[in-house]
Parts: sequence; C-alpha cells; structure tokens
Amino acid sequence: MSATAAFPPPVPARDFAGVFSRVAPHMAALDAFLRRQLDAFEPEIRDMADYCIDTSGKRIRPALVFFSGWSGAGSTPSEDLVQVAAVVELVHLATLVHDDIMDEADVRRARPTASRQYGPAAAVLLGDALFAHALHLAALFPTTEVCRAVSESTRRVCAGEIMQTLRRRSVAVTRADYERVIDLKTAELFRVSCALGARLGGHSDAFVADAAVFGRHLGIAYQIYDDLADFFGREQRIGKTLGTDLASGKLTLPLFLLRDRLPPAERVALEAELLGQAEPRLELRLRQMAELGVFEAVAAEIERELAPAEAALARHPGLAPVEHLGALPLVLRAQVGALR
Amino acid sequence: MSATAAFPPPVPARDFAGVFSRVAPHMAALDAFLRRQLDAFEPEIRDMADYCIDTSGKRIRPALVFFSGWSGAGSTPSEDLVQVAAVVELVHLATLVHDDIMDEADVRRARPTASRQYGPAAAVLLGDALFAHALHLAALFPTTEVCRAVSESTRRVCAGEIMQTLRRRSVAVTRADYERVIDLKTAELFRVSCALGARLGGHSDAFVADAAVFGRHLGIAYQIYDDLADFFGREQRIGKTLGTDLASGKLTLPLFLLRDRLPPAERVALEAELLGQAEPRLELRLRQMAELGVFEAVAAEIERELAPAEAALARHPGLAPVEHLGALPLVLRAQVGALR
Repeated sequence: MSATAAFPPPVPARDFAGVFSRVAPHMAALDAFLRRQLDAFEPEIRDMADYCIDTSGKRIRPALVFFSGWSGAGSTPSEDLVQVAAVVELVHLATLVHDDIMDEADVRRARPTASRQYGPAAAVLLGDALFAHALHLAALFPTTEVCRAVSESTRRVCAGEIMQTLRRRSVAVTRADYERVIDLKTAELFRVSCALGARLGGHSDAFVADAAVFGRHLGIAYQIYDDLADFFGREQRIGKTLGTDLASGKLTLPLFLLRDRLPPAERVALEAELLGQAEPRLELRLRQMAELGVFEAVAAEIERELAPAEAALARHPGLAPVEHLGALPLVLRAQVGALR
Repeated sequence: MSATAAFPPPVPARDFAGVFSRVAPHMAALDAFLRRQLDAFEPEIRDMADYCIDTSGKRIRPALVFFSGWSGAGSTPSEDLVQVAAVVELVHLATLVHDDIMDEADVRRARPTASRQYGPAAAVLLGDALFAHALHLAALFPTTEVCRAVSESTRRVCAGEIMQTLRRRSVAVTRADYERVIDLKTAELFRVSCALGARLGGHSDAFVADAAVFGRHLGIAYQIYDDLADFFGREQRIGKTLGTDLASGKLTLPLFLLRDRLPPAERVALEAELLGQAEPRLELRLRQMAELGVFEAVAAEIERELAPAEAALARHPGLAPVEHLGALPLVLRAQVGALR
C-alpha cells in the first residue's frame, strides 16, 4: 500500500467509514495489536475474547485517538497511539458485552451477542476480563496517567449506564437526567479518547484540553443522533431494530420532545406505552413526531452540541489534528440529514 | 485504644477473626478509607456502592496485605498498605457482586445481594464501577506496578470463574481443571495481596517472591477448605446453605474424591445428580463421604498445600511478617478440624 493510497487528501465524507479511511494503516495496526493481545488471555478463554474483539465495529473511539494525536500527513501509527486506541476500544467492547446481557439482546453486528453465544453468566465475566485487560494495557505506559484517566472514565461510563437502567419504565425522568446519562455513558469515553490521543501525540496542554471539550460535545451529539436513528433509521442500514427505546421504556430526546408537544390525552397514552402498560405504537409515534416537528427539534439540539465542539477546534487553526477532527461534525450532520 | 490493646502478643487463634484482631487499627483505617472512597462515585450511585462496601466480610485479602507488609510490633497502618488493601478488597467485592448475579443468589452475609436489591442489570454495572474504582486507586500509586499487578490478577480471576461457570453440570471436568480453576479464581488474589503487601512494606525481593508463593498455596488450601465446608459446615456458623455445589452441579474436590471411591452404579447415580438429571441426595452423599474417608482425604490435600506455604515462610526466619502470616495455616487447620 503506497503512502499516497493510505493517506488520501482529506475530502468531504458522508459517513464515518469514509473519514476513518484516512487512518486506515492505524486501524490495521490496531487490529493487529488487538489480535496479539489474545495471547495474554488464559488459553481457556482465548476463543471467547477473540469472539468479542471482532473487527466489524465502527471503531469511532480509536479514530478519535488517532485523529487527536495526528502529527501531519503521512504519519505512521505510533505504538503509543495504537496502544491507547486498543485500551479505549477494549473498554467500549467490554461495556457492549455487559449492555447486551442487560438488554437481553440476541444479535449485534449481524451475529449472536456474547451473552447469547456463551450464556449471560460467562458474558458477565468475559466483559470483566476484557475490561481488566484494557486496564492492564493502560498500566503498561511508563506513567500512571493513562490508567488513571481510563479507570475514572470507566467508572463514569458505568454510573451513566446504571442511571439509565434504573430509570427504564419511568416517566419521572427529566431532561436533565437524560443529559447527565449521555454525558456519562457516551461522551465520557469520547472525551478521554480525544484527550489521551492529543496528549500521547505530543500536543500542547491547551490543545489537550480543547480536544477533550471537542470529544465531549461530539459524544453528546453522537448519542442524540443515535437516539434519533432509533426512530428514523433504516433498519437494514443501521443494522438494528427500530423503536427499541420506546419498546423498552427508555425516555430519550425524541420522546421527551414528542411528549412535550402532545395534547394531554395523547401524552397519557404515550406514557402508558413507556411504562409498559400499553403496546407501543411505533407507527403512530413516528407520524406524530413528523407532524410536530420533533425531528427538526432534535437536529437543532445536535447542532447546539456541535457548535462548542467546533469552537474548541477553531482555537487551534492549522494544527494537524484539527483538519481530521473537524470532519467529524460534518459527517454527523450528513448522517442526521440521511435520516430525513 | 492503647498500643498494647491494639497489638496483643500473637497467641494461637482458632479463627480468622482472632488472628485479624492483631491488625485491628489497620482494618479500622481500611474501613475509614473505603468510606471516603464513596465520595469518588457519582452521587446517583453512591448509595449502591455504599451497600456493597459493607463491613461484615472477613477481609482476608486486606489482612494478607497488612501481614505481608508488617514491619514490627506497634506498626501503625501505612497509607500505602491501607490503599492497596482497599484495592484488593474492592476487586474482591466486585467479583462477589458479579458472582451473586450468576448464581442467582438472594442472600449474602445475612442481607439481600446487590443483584436482589437493585436488579441484575444494575448489579452488573455496579460491579464494573467498583472494579473501575479499584483500578483507579491502584493507578494513584507513583508507579504503574500496583495497577499492572492488580489488572492482570483480575483478568486471571475472571478467567477462572468463566471456566468454572462453563463447566457447571458437566462430569467431564478433570482434577486438573479443578486445580486450575481454584488457582485462578481464589489463589491469584491471595497471591497478589501478599506480594504487594510485602513490596509496599519495603521487604526484600526474595521475601516478596516467597510471600507470593505463600499466598498462592494458602489460597488454594483456603478454597479447598471452603469446598469442604460446603458439605461439612454448620449452616448457621458459616452463614451459607450447605450442599450448593452438589445442587448446582459444580464438581469440587470432595465430589471428585467421593466419585472415585464409589462403586460404578453409585457413581452413575451421583453423576446424574451433578448433571441435574436427578434430585441431589445430600444426606446420602454426606454419609458416603464419611464412610469412604473423603473428609480425611480432602484434609490431606489441604495439608499438601500448606506445606509449601509454610516452607516459603521458613526461608525468612525472624522476619516481621512471618509470625503473623505463619498463624494463618494454623487457623486454617483449626477451621478444618472444627468441621469434623
């Protein structure tokens, strides 16, 4: 693979895969690194770990590490960046394994979840083992900085997911609760991916701080997009069942905004669906969302998060990572547009 | 509390609580330290974390840290030892939270398990959060040594528990499998507790290595004792239901030894009970164990592990930790004797 082919000049991309192809050698190095990690697992659980470290995910968090640590066109993947990308991806994969147990999900990325494949009991422990190995890799850096950052982030991610779990089938959840949950469960790992990437890429403290701000707001925007796609996505494209949040009683932003706009009697009916007291009527709720401008209102909230993300980058004009990171809000806008 | 009251001269003790009272100020410092950690958890999950960090456990692993790091009579608890004791105890508590989900256990230490109290989904995440915080505390040491050791141990503990889980209701399990599982799931954390205690207590590399050997063999012996107590314990004393291993199809040493000694027809019947194809007959199996000398054979296996544990200590005559650590095999023998 020539350097030219590996590093095409940045062009507008409409999806994450397009933008991430700019760091194709880094992603290949990450995959090779993750494969090598399997040797660290006890032989008896190696196949199970292998099953989880699949290569079909989007790898958004590693991309954030590589982009934030970027030092100029033609960069070859530094070992430090690859290792920290592996750490954040393993933490993410561990949380997916545990999420799928809690959601009783059967399929992820077109194949059985670990919970379905090995049983929920083994999957609890397998998630633990993946997480432990992530922290072990973090502890192999010369200083404790990576381990401190990642372990604290992980605790915050778990706290966000606990809150979300305990608030299922409740209609007393507030917008503030929702914002807090997505800040913890999604934005936190985006934030730490950008901060550690920038730090290990040798950038200034000022850029590290702004990369963290960028990552956090991008993460919030991304989660709101994901919640919107749960209603407006095309199943075969996003590879997920639609309407799962309504069916499982999870109040997300589209549902908050719909509820606020419905007349009182319809609001009571929607709440009964969220509480599991009535069958969820996805078609009706989608039609109401369209009629009441919910899609536009959610898109506006996404923009409200992308603004401070882009402002953080604008404070570092010309810095190598900015061009790549700056493509991500554009892609997210294109993805939101594609749901219309 | 006077120093004399806090540090009575070592006397033979028949239970762990008696021996652990030698480090009562250390245990008090540990409890205070663990309480303070609650502030690090997000306010929304603090009560749940508090529920798990209860003070009614035996705290064997912290005791191993304090004894291995002992530097002489009248020692006041060093901050390092208290912190590393908190790390190993939090890892242990996290695994208990996850174990209770898998075992569908309702009660631990005379109150509802976290899984029963908050639901299994929240308990999965709560265990993760406790574990993440343990690793965070490990990462606060000046070097990455503690974090590396603890994260690797945790992965090994999980691997052992996965193997055990996948082998339930199987009679193809070998003695070698059983030995590997208890080496990983129990002996590993005993080993690392002793090694880190000795290291942070400022002892020589030679003693750190032997403390690790001692911890490992004591851990294996302790788990065999625990498996024996599942048959021969007195329920109200050990606070657990008896015969759970037989009922849940878990082949432990007493069952291996019973199976080996039974005539073929009875062996088939026992295997049917382990496979869940027949009602477990605990009374009968206990009577057969008594008749066939299983208790004595298991006790002999415990002795076989205590020998190398004691030999490791004997290589360091007069060293401060040895007197305390040396009491633990004596206590374990007394505990085994009390089952008779």
